[in-house]
Amino acid sequence: MALSQDFAAPRSPRAGCALCEASGGVLVAQAQRWRVIRAEDAAFPAFYRVVWREHVAEFGDLDADARVHCMTVVEAVERTLRERLAPTKINLAALGNVVPHLHWHVIARFDWDSHWPQPVWAAPQRTVEPTPLARLGTSLAALDAAVFAALAHLAD
Amino acid sequence: MALSQDFAAPRSPRAGCALCEASGGVLVAQAQRWRVIRAEDAAFPAFYRVVWREHVAEFGDLDADARVHCMTVVEAVERTLRERLAPTKINLAALGNVVPHLHWHVIARFDWDSHWPQPVWAAPQRTVEPTPLARLGTSLAALDAAVFAALAHLAD
Repeated sequence: MALSQDFAAPRSPRAGCALCEASGGVLVAQAQRWRVIRAEDAAFPAFYRVVWREHVAEFGDLDADARVHCMTVVEAVERTLRERLAPTKINLAALGNVVPHLHWHVIARFDWDSHWPQPVWAAPQRTVEPTPLARLGTSLAALDAAVFAALAHLAD
Repeated sequence: MALSQDFAAPRSPRAGCALCEASGGVLVAQAQRWRVIRAEDAAFPAFYRVVWREHVAEFGDLDADARVHCMTVVEAVERTLRERLAPTKINLAALGNVVPHLHWHVIARFDWDSHWPQPVWAAPQRTVEPTPLARLGTSLAALDAAVFAALAHLAD
């Protein structure tokens, strides 16, 4: 199956689940089992999410094969951000307290960003000028395209 | 190799790295490639970390086999916490902004905990009485032993 850039609901959506009913961000790539979106966060422009398409709450709800596949997708997004942006650090997280539908945050962090070295969910540490997007050194369209290209061979 | 409960430094420690030089918490189990520690956090008593023994900063610095193995360990800790505690949610994260040595946070979250539904790194939402430990319904010694048992077949 080729990657798509159109959202399609899972086969067994959970009523009222925000990630069953909509993409949850800019849809970068959708495959049979997962999609990658870009969160639209001005403070962290290189903030992507790997969303498992079917509604499961926990990483451990996936079978072993699916867990491996899921983390292969996460690692491909991580690698693309490292290659394109040389961030100070990558942050990975699967929390889901508010939206308990499995999704992995993949966030490029920089020592100049508003929350560094705290997690993005902590209190901001500073204001950032010029804007984070201006400091990335690439356009989001180019970054999305690089993520899409890195995922092409993982579509299934 | 059998699991140990004694800390041993990695073969190639990074000078000044807190997770190369010490366990980083209560050492629950150590294998050849990883160890599991319990963070001593009164607000989140069921807070474990899977620490990769050799010093690498990013998940993607591991080769594919090691990534699979690492997440198998993470999932085993997650599964144990779910079976023993029936938490509201599991939170997983590899951040490493302050200590850039690969470690996965595995945290049992409850809808009564001090930060719920926010991440543990955000601002607290409430005070918790009685103590979180008293509300767990099990001792930390019993929980550590269950985690150790779940990891025994993964030692390598």
